Amino acid sequence: MKTTLVLNWFANPYHTPLYVAKALGFFDDCGLDLAILQPANPSDVTQIVGTQKADFGLKAMIHCYAARERGYPIKSFGTLLDEPPTGLLFLQESGIKEFKDLKGKRIGFVGEFGKIIFDDLAKRAGIAPSDYEMVRVGMHAVDAIARGRVDAAMGIACFQQVELESRCGPTDLLRVDELAGLGCCCFCSVLLIAHENFIASDPDRVHALMQGLQRGMAYTQESPDEAFEIMCDHNPHLRDDAFKKVFVSCLPYFSRRLENVERDWNKVGKYAQHLGVSKEADPSACYTNAFVPEPHVRHAALPS
Amino acid sequence: MKTTLVLNWFANPYHTPLYVAKALGFFDDCGLDLAILQPANPSDVTQIVGTQKADFGLKAMIHCYAARERGYPIKSFGTLLDEPPTGLLFLQESGIKEFKDLKGKRIGFVGEFGKIIFDDLAKRAGIAPSDYEMVRVGMHAVDAIARGRVDAAMGIACFQQVELESRCGPTDLLRVDELAGLGCCCFCSVLLIAHENFIASDPDRVHALMQGLQRGMAYTQESPDEAFEIMCDHNPHLRDDAFKKVFVSCLPYFSRRLENVERDWNKVGKYAQHLGVSKEADPSACYTNAFVPEPHVRHAALPS
Repeated sequence: MKTTLVLNWFANPYHTPLYVAKALGFFDDCGLDLAILQPANPSDVTQIVGTQKADFGLKAMIHCYAARERGYPIKSFGTLLDEPPTGLLFLQESGIKEFKDLKGKRIGFVGEFGKIIFDDLAKRAGIAPSDYEMVRVGMHAVDAIARGRVDAAMGIACFQQVELESRCGPTDLLRVDELAGLGCCCFCSVLLIAHENFIASDPDRVHALMQGLQRGMAYTQESPDEAFEIMCDHNPHLRDDAFKKVFVSCLPYFSRRLENVERDWNKVGKYAQHLGVSKEADPSACYTNAFVPEPHVRHAALPS
Repeated sequence: MKTTLVLNWFANPYHTPLYVAKALGFFDDCGLDLAILQPANPSDVTQIVGTQKADFGLKAMIHCYAARERGYPIKSFGTLLDEPPTGLLFLQESGIKEFKDLKGKRIGFVGEFGKIIFDDLAKRAGIAPSDYEMVRVGMHAVDAIARGRVDAAMGIACFQQVELESRCGPTDLLRVDELAGLGCCCFCSVLLIAHENFIASDPDRVHALMQGLQRGMAYTQESPDEAFEIMCDHNPHLRDDAFKKVFVSCLPYFSRRLENVERDWNKVGKYAQHLGVSKEADPSACYTNAFVPEPHVRHAALPS
């Protein structure tokens, strides 16, 4: 039986631990025949997982709160990427220096929540909705900035900012965690999710996914060059200097223990409430650490 | 007033966050005039800090347990490097494949505890002390292996192994956490330490160190190339391909939150007890997370 996992994005360097685990047979070793799927539209993922059209997915905390509010009872059981800084990204040549400089500009966003977040920040800054234009760019913020379709766009420091800087020159990032006073950059942590019924009824497959991923994560952290080579073998479009630099930039954010962080869930819960995307700010139904694996041991210990 | 901090090793890539914080004035901003000192002998550090000849130091968990046992009441208040895999390192051309192959070999170790750990592993493997030779190599395992002084030596995967591989060719590592059945590779986490009286009487300086280091850590993780450039400006011997590769390999292990991890302290406590270096396996006196800082916010949030 195939088990499906829908990524949150096209295959990119921060997915390396998953591809490594697949390529090196770590999921197979756990009895999991995992099919990794890339979404054409990242906004589809919570609904696909929330209606059990796919077994597993990747998504951020705010999406979990919002999905549950809308009757899609998804739950996170682990973290892939921990607190990558996220914000409004632009080229320095744009002349933008601070948030108020975004007045009159075209702003790229990924999906629904990026727009809600920007609208909230603009309102706080006293910029009227008629004073900026929102452009839905999906997963293509770098391309949209490079081609002049937008002046700034939401992106991640260790991914889109590094890629844009490699391709087009100096950039800056106005961080959402700082603009919104979140007090942590957990806002864009990339989490492993499933429908709560799937987790309850098939815990063995959740365990298997986490065990295999734990080995893929350890391999990626311990042998980064080899891991990225494997990633590029399966995604040849990543085999260039810009994406290699993105990969190195992502290394500090990979979650070695794969744990959900309570502090971060609490902060994002309050933020989701403030944004009006969730009435519930209590994260206890949103995540579990029951599947966080012990480190994989490759060799039997010597007798004690 | 100068505040002194004694490193656990000669200045190397995993000290980058400290040097960045110093170079960019992050400690100064916190009112801390920090003098970073490199030890000639890493085995001196706990005694220097444990007798308050220096204010702060870097050291591993096992050293804290052992120091307290010997009447040097040092305490950790944070983590710099989290769980770098550590073990017996050697060139593949040595023909060594598994632990029993170390019979008849010359084994390099850093200081007292490395020898205790190896002797314990050898005993478990049924290798008599007369069947191997221990050579104290201090901080120079790579040089000792490269020059044929030893056949294998204790080292860290993301440091000595990467350096040796860059300089001399393919290597392997038999990990202590796996050989000893520790179930985590916390054994060599690099911690911030001070005398417990210093922490109690001068908490402001501990806070200042952690605040400044938190910014240096964020800078290192968010701008790794620039951070390593700063590190090399202050330590020009690091400006080569091998140490750049070491730096990239250390990125996954930098502790962003700087927290001490209870699970790891418990495991190392039991291990220290097993090795006979500490009667006490309870870590509660050994560390505190009271000084773990909130993330540094560079810009005021927009009004909510």
